[in-house]
Amino acid sequence: MKIVALSGGVGGAKLVDGLAAVVPAEALAVVVNTGDDFVHWGLRICPDLDTVMYTLAGLAHPTQGWGLAEESWGAFAMVERLGGPAWFRLGDRDLGVHLVRTQRLASGAPLSTVTGELCHALGVRARVLPMCETPRPTLLDTEAGTLDFQEWLVRRRGAPAVSRVWSSGPSAPSPLVLDAIAAAELVVIGPSNPYVSIDPILGLDGVRAAIAGKPVIAVSPIVGGRAVKGPLAPMIEALARRAPSPAAIADHYAGLVTGLVLEEGDEPPAGVAACATRTVMTSRDDRVRLAREVIAFAEELGR
Amino acid sequence: MKIVALSGGVGGAKLVDGLAAVVPAEALAVVVNTGDDFVHWGLRICPDLDTVMYTLAGLAHPTQGWGLAEESWGAFAMVERLGGPAWFRLGDRDLGVHLVRTQRLASGAPLSTVTGELCHALGVRARVLPMCETPRPTLLDTEAGTLDFQEWLVRRRGAPAVSRVWSSGPSAPSPLVLDAIAAAELVVIGPSNPYVSIDPILGLDGVRAAIAGKPVIAVSPIVGGRAVKGPLAPMIEALARRAPSPAAIADHYAGLVTGLVLEEGDEPPAGVAACATRTVMTSRDDRVRLAREVIAFAEELGR
Repeated sequence: MKIVALSGGVGGAKLVDGLAAVVPAEALAVVVNTGDDFVHWGLRICPDLDTVMYTLAGLAHPTQGWGLAEESWGAFAMVERLGGPAWFRLGDRDLGVHLVRTQRLASGAPLSTVTGELCHALGVRARVLPMCETPRPTLLDTEAGTLDFQEWLVRRRGAPAVSRVWSSGPSAPSPLVLDAIAAAELVVIGPSNPYVSIDPILGLDGVRAAIAGKPVIAVSPIVGGRAVKGPLAPMIEALARRAPSPAAIADHYAGLVTGLVLEEGDEPPAGVAACATRTVMTSRDDRVRLAREVIAFAEELGR
Repeated sequence: MKIVALSGGVGGAKLVDGLAAVVPAEALAVVVNTGDDFVHWGLRICPDLDTVMYTLAGLAHPTQGWGLAEESWGAFAMVERLGGPAWFRLGDRDLGVHLVRTQRLASGAPLSTVTGELCHALGVRARVLPMCETPRPTLLDTEAGTLDFQEWLVRRRGAPAVSRVWSSGPSAPSPLVLDAIAAAELVVIGPSNPYVSIDPILGLDGVRAAIAGKPVIAVSPIVGGRAVKGPLAPMIEALARRAPSPAAIADHYAGLVTGLVLEEGDEPPAGVAACATRTVMTSRDDRVRLAREVIAFAEELGR
């Protein structure tokens, strides 16, 4: 079964790692949000792409939610000592990735090509596709004005209340994204933030139309009324004006999703097929088991 | 006594460190060769400026001749793993300096301003001045074609025979350089390579004229017929067609230098005042002693 997974950072990356363990590499493509990308220290940083890539390479930090497992901080310490911008931490090995990516992009290579090269060098066999070739920053209208995503999440610690999330820049997806979706027999939406990780992908020209009619399974990022990680719960309260729940996720994806995987014990939403299981992935086994269950659920719905 | 020192990398930096220990900070300005500067990994690298700055800050590697004493190599290891250019090694903390410098230059700050900021942050009190504000690359015509300095020295390990050394780019010095020379009562030329470290400074518009008539003491970088460090000896053989010696250095600087400090036991050149002492600086004490001797020699010549 050819699968396209849509992913933000941590949660999506873990599910993708599980999928990569249970389907052949050539059957898996991951479309990754690049709305969080930004330029820092003069370098192009792609937080979600890197989290997916590092997770698939087995190099991701096990608990931190970003960056590499084995990391040093020499460059960061020096930048800080020199009074450079120190609100966003970049480890030394991570920096090596950003340096190579920035150089390759500057030489004219498309982001998808560069991502493919980096993945190949790190031993990642599944196709990891940036949603766009060109910058498409996610912006947040907040009580403190309109902010870049990283500015809001990291520098302001996600504190300013958000009233609107939107994307700027050209809305063309990478052609590889539409090709991958066209070839897919199943679309999996990872347990990522719908507003800032998945909507930026779905909002690109032709993506919703390409997905329409395909089986689409989403995994709820809300467990027990809270986000497993990140700023999703208050966003749902502010933007959807309701309590965070699997039903809020199902309604957000209404008309698109054919099945929702949610945490055991959470209330299943009305109006969409639901599968309850343990969705919180704390071990590699959890990732693989959840991936198998997502596929089994899709197969069951397809019968 | 107000001193301007002209310096390349290691040897010049050590002498400058000695001078900084014996004269007040406000009485010392160091004009540093930027002909070796280049862009690597998208970053502006200034090898001689950094060697002088790190040496004055007490952070330089004690024996390596470049880079910092305490360094890690995480970024380099990753760049290498990703197939990026790995012929020039950049440590992580060093990289922090290049990142900050590149960003400040991109924001429009002149190199002298950025260098002043970096020195201030690292606790360097003497004025460290890049010779130019704009790139002025030193090029070498060699049997393997015309090469950038780092391309020749590091990538090709200084192997291709050199037939000519020249500078490209605008020939205006930093205005701060001419100001510093105008105010100086003594010009010290460090034991640096005349062709690739000092001539690039002397070749800038107005520099020789500004120096003319001032006491100028050079320290011979040739000891016992060999260069203390670096590729100078074969350069003298190829470019001056003579054996490397203090006399070759004195002749190279003929008409400019009023006194030459050379190693005890080496033959003093004719036609210029000479002072023999131990010029090889293996300890901090050596640097300070040599600096005192250079100043005493200048005072003696001035009587």
